[in-house]
Amino acid sequence: HFVSIDVNADQEEAIKLFEKYNLVALPVTDSQGHLLGIVTVDDIIDAIREEQTEDFTRFSAIKTKAVDLDLFTRLREIPFRKVFRARVTWLFFLLIMDLMVGGIIQGFQETIAKYVVLVSFLPVLIDTAGNAGSQAATLVIRALALGTVKLKDWAFLLGRELLVAGALGIAMGAGISIMGIVRGKSIAIAQVVVLAMIINVIVGSLIGVLLPFIFTRFKKDPATASTPLITTLADIFGTAIYLGIAYLMLG
Amino acid sequence: HFVSIDVNADQEEAIKLFEKYNLVALPVTDSQGHLLGIVTVDDIIDAIREEQTEDFTRFSAIKTKAVDLDLFTRLREIPFRKVFRARVTWLFFLLIMDLMVGGIIQGFQETIAKYVVLVSFLPVLIDTAGNAGSQAATLVIRALALGTVKLKDWAFLLGRELLVAGALGIAMGAGISIMGIVRGKSIAIAQVVVLAMIINVIVGSLIGVLLPFIFTRFKKDPATASTPLITTLADIFGTAIYLGIAYLMLG
Repeated sequence: HFVSIDVNADQEEAIKLFEKYNLVALPVTDSQGHLLGIVTVDDIIDAIREEQTEDFTRFSAIKTKAVDLDLFTRLREIPFRKVFRARVTWLFFLLIMDLMVGGIIQGFQETIAKYVVLVSFLPVLIDTAGNAGSQAATLVIRALALGTVKLKDWAFLLGRELLVAGALGIAMGAGISIMGIVRGKSIAIAQVVVLAMIINVIVGSLIGVLLPFIFTRFKKDPATASTPLITTLADIFGTAIYLGIAYLMLG
Repeated sequence: HFVSIDVNADQEEAIKLFEKYNLVALPVTDSQGHLLGIVTVDDIIDAIREEQTEDFTRFSAIKTKAVDLDLFTRLREIPFRKVFRARVTWLFFLLIMDLMVGGIIQGFQETIAKYVVLVSFLPVLIDTAGNAGSQAATLVIRALALGTVKLKDWAFLLGRELLVAGALGIAMGAGISIMGIVRGKSIAIAQVVVLAMIINVIVGSLIGVLLPFIFTRFKKDPATASTPLITTLADIFGTAIYLGIAYLMLG
C-alpha cells in the first residue's frame, strides 16, 4: 500500500499528505485507483502559499473571488477596478451592519444626554471586545486550517475561552477602572464601565471562537470570520451591553 | 555555479530560494563556501507553515514570543497561563491608546451635548476607517512577506491607495448619506457625516499602507501592523476628524 490522492480531492488535502509523510511527489488516481499523474513538491509549495494568501486576505474582509489570488500579491500590477471591487463589497455590508449600532445608541439617547461622559468610554469598550474577539478567532481559524482542531472541538474551546476571556476581561476592567473614576468623576460611572468591559471582552471573545466554527459547519472557509466582521459584531453587542448596563444602573 | 545558502541567513530567505528554483534540497555553506549540510524540502514546508502561523497570529495582536509557535496551533494543549500572556500584552497596550479617543471625545463634549445624534454615527465612522485600513495593511503585509513588494515601493503604493481609498470613501459616504438625513433629521448633520466618512476611509487606508512599511524600515515584522493596532489608530484619528468637522460645521 502506498500514499496517493483522489483526483477530486481538495488541494488542502494534498498539502496535509505532503506534510504528514514528508513526500516529494504524490500519485493522483481516479476512483478505481488508476494512476492519472503526479503532484510534485514544488507545486505543493505554491499551493501552500496560495492557500495562505487566500486565508490572510479573506480574514481582512477582502473578497478573494474578485481577483486572481496570485494578482493580490503583485500589488503594483493589480488593476484599480479589481482592487476596488474586492474591497468595497464587505466594507459596504459591514457599514450596513454598523448602522445597527447607531440605532442602539439612539434607543438610549436619554441616558446619554444625562451622562454625556459615557460616550467617552464607548470606543475603548467596543474596541477591546473586538480586539479580544479577533485574537480568539485567529487562533481557531489557524488551527482549523492546519487540521489540529476539528469541528467537534467547538464546545471544549468555547468553555476554555470563557475562562481565558474572563481573566482578560478582569485585567482590562482593572486597567480602565482608574480612568472610570478620574474621567467619570463618580464611582457609579466607574462601576458601569468596569462591568461593561468585563462582559464585553467575554462576549467578543466567544463570538471570535464560535464564528469560525459556524462558517465551517456551513461549508464556508473559517477565515470568512474576518477581523472586521468580528469587530462589527462586537460593536453591536458591546454597545447594547454597555448602554443597557448604564441604563439599569444609572437610569 | 549552484544555488546555496549561507548558514546565517534567515529561514524566510531559504523559503524564497526553494520557491524560485523549485528545489527539493538546498546546500548550506559557511562564509567561505564550505558545505555544512543541506536543508530538504520537507523542512521548508514546515518552515513555511510556521512563518505563516507567526504572521497570522501577530497580525491579530497576539504576542508570538510568549508561546512556542507550534503550540499556538495545538489549541487544546496550550496552557492557560501562556495564552493569557500572549493576548493580554497587546490588549492592554491598545486599551491605553484607546483611552486617547475618550480624551478627544471629552474635548468636544459641548458639541456632543448640543447634537447627541452625532454619537450614533461615531461607531460606523471609526469602524469603516479601521476596516479599510485593515484591508490595505493585509495586502501590503502579504506582498512584503512574499517579496513581491519592496520597501522602496512605499511611495507608489501610498499614491495608489489615495485613489482607491478615495473611491471607497465616496462609496461609503454615499452609503451613509441617506441615514445621515433620516437619523440626523438635517442636511447639515448629513453633510458632516458624509464628509467625515470620506476623509476617515482615506486616512484609515493610508495608515494601513504606511504602517507595515514603517515596521519593516525599523527591522520589525510588517505583520506587527496588526488589525487591532490599525483599528485603534483609525479610531483616534477618525474621532478627531469627525468631531472636528462637526465642531467647525455645526459649532
